[in-house]
Amino acid sequence: MNSPPPLKQAPDFTLFDINKQEMLQRKKNAVLVDGVFLNGPIADARAGEKFVEDACKIIMEEVIQKAADVTEKVCEWQPPEKLKKLLDLEMRDTGEPHQQLLQLCQDVIRYSVKTNHPRFFNQLYAGIDYYSLVARFITEALNPSVYTYEVSPVFLLVEEAVLKKMIEFIGWNEGDGIFNPGGSVSNMYAMNLARYKYCPEIKEKGLSGLPRLVLFTSEECHYSMKKAASFLGIGTQNVYFIKTDERGKMIPEELEKQVQRARKEGAAPFLVSATAGTTVLGAFDPLDKIADICEKYGLWLHVDASWGGSALMSRKHRKLLHGIHRADSVAWNPHKMLMAGIQCCALLAKNNLDLLKKCYSANASYLFQQDKFYDVSYDTGDKSIQCSRRPDAFKFWMTWKALGTTGLEERVNRALALARYFYLKLRLGFFWFGGREYANICFWYIPPSLRDMEEGAEFWEKLHHVAPVIKERMMKKGSMMLGYQPHLGKVNFFRQVVISPQVRREDMDFLLDEIDLLGRDL
Amino acid sequence: MNSPPPLKQAPDFTLFDINKQEMLQRKKNAVLVDGVFLNGPIADARAGEKFVEDACKIIMEEVIQKAADVTEKVCEWQPPEKLKKLLDLEMRDTGEPHQQLLQLCQDVIRYSVKTNHPRFFNQLYAGIDYYSLVARFITEALNPSVYTYEVSPVFLLVEEAVLKKMIEFIGWNEGDGIFNPGGSVSNMYAMNLARYKYCPEIKEKGLSGLPRLVLFTSEECHYSMKKAASFLGIGTQNVYFIKTDERGKMIPEELEKQVQRARKEGAAPFLVSATAGTTVLGAFDPLDKIADICEKYGLWLHVDASWGGSALMSRKHRKLLHGIHRADSVAWNPHKMLMAGIQCCALLAKNNLDLLKKCYSANASYLFQQDKFYDVSYDTGDKSIQCSRRPDAFKFWMTWKALGTTGLEERVNRALALARYFYLKLRLGFFWFGGREYANICFWYIPPSLRDMEEGAEFWEKLHHVAPVIKERMMKKGSMMLGYQPHLGKVNFFRQVVISPQVRREDMDFLLDEIDLLGRDL
Repeated sequence: MNSPPPLKQAPDFTLFDINKQEMLQRKKNAVLVDGVFLNGPIADARAGEKFVEDACKIIMEEVIQKAADVTEKVCEWQPPEKLKKLLDLEMRDTGEPHQQLLQLCQDVIRYSVKTNHPRFFNQLYAGIDYYSLVARFITEALNPSVYTYEVSPVFLLVEEAVLKKMIEFIGWNEGDGIFNPGGSVSNMYAMNLARYKYCPEIKEKGLSGLPRLVLFTSEECHYSMKKAASFLGIGTQNVYFIKTDERGKMIPEELEKQVQRARKEGAAPFLVSATAGTTVLGAFDPLDKIADICEKYGLWLHVDASWGGSALMSRKHRKLLHGIHRADSVAWNPHKMLMAGIQCCALLAKNNLDLLKKCYSANASYLFQQDKFYDVSYDTGDKSIQCSRRPDAFKFWMTWKALGTTGLEERVNRALALARYFYLKLRLGFFWFGGREYANICFWYIPPSLRDMEEGAEFWEKLHHVAPVIKERMMKKGSMMLGYQPHLGKVNFFRQVVISPQVRREDMDFLLDEIDLLGRDL
Repeated sequence: MNSPPPLKQAPDFTLFDINKQEMLQRKKNAVLVDGVFLNGPIADARAGEKFVEDACKIIMEEVIQKAADVTEKVCEWQPPEKLKKLLDLEMRDTGEPHQQLLQLCQDVIRYSVKTNHPRFFNQLYAGIDYYSLVARFITEALNPSVYTYEVSPVFLLVEEAVLKKMIEFIGWNEGDGIFNPGGSVSNMYAMNLARYKYCPEIKEKGLSGLPRLVLFTSEECHYSMKKAASFLGIGTQNVYFIKTDERGKMIPEELEKQVQRARKEGAAPFLVSATAGTTVLGAFDPLDKIADICEKYGLWLHVDASWGGSALMSRKHRKLLHGIHRADSVAWNPHKMLMAGIQCCALLAKNNLDLLKKCYSANASYLFQQDKFYDVSYDTGDKSIQCSRRPDAFKFWMTWKALGTTGLEERVNRALALARYFYLKLRLGFFWFGGREYANICFWYIPPSLRDMEEGAEFWEKLHHVAPVIKERMMKKGSMMLGYQPHLGKVNFFRQVVISPQVRREDMDFLLDEIDLLGRDL
């Protein structure tokens, strides 16, 4: 507060480029400033509300109600160049009338993938949750940003309550956390936290001149680990990938070898990122054994449970994450298995030593004034790398309120039972591999022409081309959506994932029949 | 594709912990797996749809329709501990019935700040845009993620179209870009891009062993520059803050001095981040002169136009950003002045040399298969630090379609005219300082008791306590919301910002009267 500027006088109108004469009363209440008439609001609220009402009807009919209908197409496929012509994408000088805009809404919906269709199995999210959807509609209408209590009182308290509950399910006595835009970003948060814990000075001084930081994760980890290492200035080469077993789980002995190697190299190991629920195989790393190694070598243990974290809701399946309470940080995305809507992702950190705040704070004076009239410890925005932040916890909270813990548990149990059912129904021509602990079931479809061929180079080459063709056919038909990929030396295979409670066992049967139907001539 | 595993046989049921006998037909179509009956979907679609319908009515009445009504409170203020008691925050084992959940929705709305109230001036966003709101409702119902064309055909094409148009308004011949969750993240993207351009090897090798990277930005810049430097491993000390003039604009001569200083220190200058529309004062750095210096010293020029970028839509005001076409990257948030809904933020990069892709790619095989049946150049997800990503461009597109460029221009012109009107109406007791080029008007309110006091330490100390008390009173009354802050040596002052087309000039008059009413006894 030193050397404040001298107080200026109230503005001298003659100094500026506005002609005071401009400010004339042209019509009632009208004032002209800078060539703009300031008479009342320019937005027509009645017309706007009518537009929202009409659009909501379309959304209810075309998206929400059709969601449960398996006879509808998952997607009305059009190739990019054709779709560009079908949609009127151009933004023009003049606006378009409501009727035309409503047609546009219908076209957007028509040509979009219905991720809430019971036969959408393409990603790690699917289905429709009516409760989180309502929370999201409320969010969009209120349009809040979550950084200070004064602007988002309800949403900050909700986030606090949800984080507390998630921390309880992880098994920590206390902790802290923050909702953020995605599992990838959560992993970045964790990597930076671990680095800060390792050497707090990096926040101010940066990495220049420091020894090479090294982190460890399995070769089945999510690709965001590489993105994070690159973004944070650590470098992708300093991610040491640890071998996995045939089910995709990190081999602890290999981890220890790599930690020792990094030490011998003179590098600075600081972090192990274990995965609970790998993206492709759905594998869970042995957290307890990995935690032992982290303890032994003084390494931060992060668990990327973006996908698998939701198993914590199930008394039956939470053993998959045995040892997670020993982690220093956890990433967990309720928008995946628990259907909270994209995005709903928490980064959680053990103990409440204000580490998040210390690591991330920048103390912006225009947001985080310390002389507010309420307890400013509720202004949690400075724990974030973002400034504006969406109230993502709220949608998860609404679903949790609606279903209760037992309802969420039932969903997890049912999804995993359906996946198990799918696995059990695999028949001649379908070859499974990997794990079968979670919702991912990976398999090859072997068309009849390949069934008697030897497993040589030619066989694998031919098999590699099967999945893409079946995928193309299912997309063009619109009957279902299922992902495929080559992965770690394996030729293209399918990955089936069950999430939504709208999915029936009949959809599993259909899926197998349909793949066979689409691929038997290959 | 080398050494694939031997193909396993279809699963041998006897091997696993599921008793095959479990799979009994208990009732029609019912199958028991792992203790879960798989008979049809467990989600009740009809009840869910009814819940959404009922909630939509509440949202329409309590949020959207009340938005235009100045007689409603901006916020029904409750302190944190009391609000916790008023809301039923706890998540229980069992779910709650729809009627109770609808009451909960009403409570959430009741105690939330109405950022669409015409007298909400607290942040750099405000108001309600019916078109972007409809787009957001569609987004939430469809629940897409934008990374591959197969999953988000429409939203990828819309993003491409919107980016192209924004690039046109910046004045580049060609460019690339990506929507991302916030201006802060956009600035991080730019910093990392500049670093990659400076030394592509950093992506793989990291910063260890490299010279100290230094970047330059004004002392009035957004606090995300510090957050970004810390997060990216550059270090906050390596952000060199450049002095500004009394209006808050970076002084180019000071910039050049600092670049020379960094060079002398043996550091590696790589980036200048200019600000177009500073957060507090609304100042625009002299981009053309800064671009000259960047050219001279071979530095990447980023323009943080998160707040001010929208002036590009106005033929009258775009001169504020004169020289922006010379930038290498631009951050621009249509969710601020153009009301696209939080968040809607683009990072744009000049020229289309695939720099974003090269800098950010990690080539995840499960998403970005190269043997798809369509042109995979439409799979833009690998340009992102995120994996799941929301279709934020869509909401801006819908508004642009509805209003046309001229409608957006009219909004900008009107907001700035209203701000100018407010400035012109400042009267005895209100002391303005800083700039008045954009929508920010910064001022002190001097209560009568201080008006004759000398401008000494006591005066400033007393003045410092005025704004917080007025803020407390307005919050408790619910009559309006306006931000205050201390800033760069200045004691607490108010910042008035006009955005929404729902705001009338009468609201400006009200604001001044209200401050006077709430503070004249201080």
